[in-house]
Amino acid sequence: MTKNLIIALDAMSGDIGPRVTLPAALQALESNPTLKLLLVGQPKAIKSLLTYATAEHISRVEIVPASYVIANNKKPSIAIRNSKETSMRIAIELVKKGQAEACVSAGNTGVLVGLSRLILKSIKGIDKPALMTVLPNQQKKQTVVLDLGANINCSSKMLIQFAIMGSIISEEINNNIKPKVALLNIGEEENKGLDNIREASVILKKITSINYIGYLESNELLTGKTDVLVCDGFSGNILLKTMEGVIRVVFSFLNSTNDMIKNHNCFIQIFKKIIINRITNHFLYLNPDQYNGASILGLRGIVIKSHGSANEKAFKSAINQAIQIINKQVPEKITARLNIVLHKSD
Amino acid sequence: MTKNLIIALDAMSGDIGPRVTLPAALQALESNPTLKLLLVGQPKAIKSLLTYATAEHISRVEIVPASYVIANNKKPSIAIRNSKETSMRIAIELVKKGQAEACVSAGNTGVLVGLSRLILKSIKGIDKPALMTVLPNQQKKQTVVLDLGANINCSSKMLIQFAIMGSIISEEINNNIKPKVALLNIGEEENKGLDNIREASVILKKITSINYIGYLESNELLTGKTDVLVCDGFSGNILLKTMEGVIRVVFSFLNSTNDMIKNHNCFIQIFKKIIINRITNHFLYLNPDQYNGASILGLRGIVIKSHGSANEKAFKSAINQAIQIINKQVPEKITARLNIVLHKSD
Repeated sequence: MTKNLIIALDAMSGDIGPRVTLPAALQALESNPTLKLLLVGQPKAIKSLLTYATAEHISRVEIVPASYVIANNKKPSIAIRNSKETSMRIAIELVKKGQAEACVSAGNTGVLVGLSRLILKSIKGIDKPALMTVLPNQQKKQTVVLDLGANINCSSKMLIQFAIMGSIISEEINNNIKPKVALLNIGEEENKGLDNIREASVILKKITSINYIGYLESNELLTGKTDVLVCDGFSGNILLKTMEGVIRVVFSFLNSTNDMIKNHNCFIQIFKKIIINRITNHFLYLNPDQYNGASILGLRGIVIKSHGSANEKAFKSAINQAIQIINKQVPEKITARLNIVLHKSD
Repeated sequence: MTKNLIIALDAMSGDIGPRVTLPAALQALESNPTLKLLLVGQPKAIKSLLTYATAEHISRVEIVPASYVIANNKKPSIAIRNSKETSMRIAIELVKKGQAEACVSAGNTGVLVGLSRLILKSIKGIDKPALMTVLPNQQKKQTVVLDLGANINCSSKMLIQFAIMGSIISEEINNNIKPKVALLNIGEEENKGLDNIREASVILKKITSINYIGYLESNELLTGKTDVLVCDGFSGNILLKTMEGVIRVVFSFLNSTNDMIKNHNCFIQIFKKIIINRITNHFLYLNPDQYNGASILGLRGIVIKSHGSANEKAFKSAINQAIQIINKQVPEKITARLNIVLHKSD
């Protein structure tokens, strides 16, 4: 069964808003001929940015009016209470009503996670949804990492639920058979780490359907030693943002090197540029824009969180992630897997 | 008052042991003419590696016999109980007895922290010592980061103690006046993060002697936005190791690029090598070997932990860090500052 590719975009979200989300939306329509987009937001703002869209693209777009936008600095509990008529809430409700298969927003993470849980509800067997993304690794494969910040306190039970969901993503999205699953810790020895991690480790060893390989330290993140890395949301957020911070330093230096070489003669200039571009291209797989888009896994529906500061390319990556998760019917597969595991443990 | 530069080395420690620690020791003697080293370990193993040392270096070296070495994979509590006659314990005891000003070991972190606390005791006003290192940043300055793994659970009180100790290091080692202090968190807003962090933030705002600037996210680690970054040991360890892991990927690619270019003609080969070396050199300031050495701050004595996998250069960095901490009389300054702060809060 192929799903309908209808995605609701919180068009007003993100640091830049529609001036990023709409060009990204048009690019996504261009590369996915069966995609339809529901653009949720202020119609006037959206229409003015669709002036240059082709008639064909316009035919696959529908504007869903929303009067308000959730401010980025609001406390989630307050923002959720006052979320009526906001673009984010309406976009999530379109998923709830079955009018869209997924929703993509670059809005406040806490509010998006909270509202999604409130409106879509968690899958039976999942205590709280988790933020998941797939990161590139040195083996030219991908590592699924979760939670990235939805839950700053995680019980051992939640970590195990994350392990199950991460395994499914690794199987479905990255085509890994029996994906390796590790727990993030600050050492590889049994006695290392916080109580919840050690408890989760004991239980994971007993679950035969999970290919649990033990603890992994964060310096191994990019090595591809594991296919799935499970952690609490606080550690996961630090891990992801540290990696992004370091990589941005590398890129910013490589870019500045490109500028520096302008002084030389033409031949040397071109030659240098070729070498530096080759190095830059190699590292492009690490560019945070490529892997923008974190799925909120464990919901009865699909919600993708984009970076607030995402550019067009990055926001398009988030839309593409939504398409992948729709095509692979991830929520249905999580439900089915949990039914088996829960049944076994009855 | 200038301190005597006498350092006790746990010569048997680390993944490679004396074949790394001793060459590093000789290099440290060469660059510090007033340094004396107490080499703690198995005399036979140590002597065989000192064959090529100059008479002058030998004159500044003393071998202190130790029968055993602490295994790296031991549970700290068990290893500490059985630490009699080990090179690590004897090295720390030399500091306790006043025969050495500092001790450097590449042994098991948990054991080193535990033994140091047991033998040297914490400074009055410090609940538990913290692992601290100084990391390079983009402003060509250094950021003090603590705790890096000594305490996986930290109370708000401990985080404040870390902030005070970090400030002193930033003032003394990095010559910052009124160093900026931030708490590591997963967002900049007041309501973000774990309870201990939010509580610490409230208190830090009231301590006038600390230049507290608020929360910092880990993607800002290398920007130099703060001079001191305070975190619990679990997060700090993940932060540091993620950074190291990503940087090693960058270096390993740059090194492999150097090999790749061998196929071309001589001129192009040399030219490419120059460019790649220049890029590699730029990133050298990020090389983990340069900033190897974490001080265990808050003890009544100086103990430096080196990476277990440190090479000669990295182990020498750890010895150099010990020299800096001795020269700046850090433990005495922490004691004095805490006396003032504790007195004020009486």
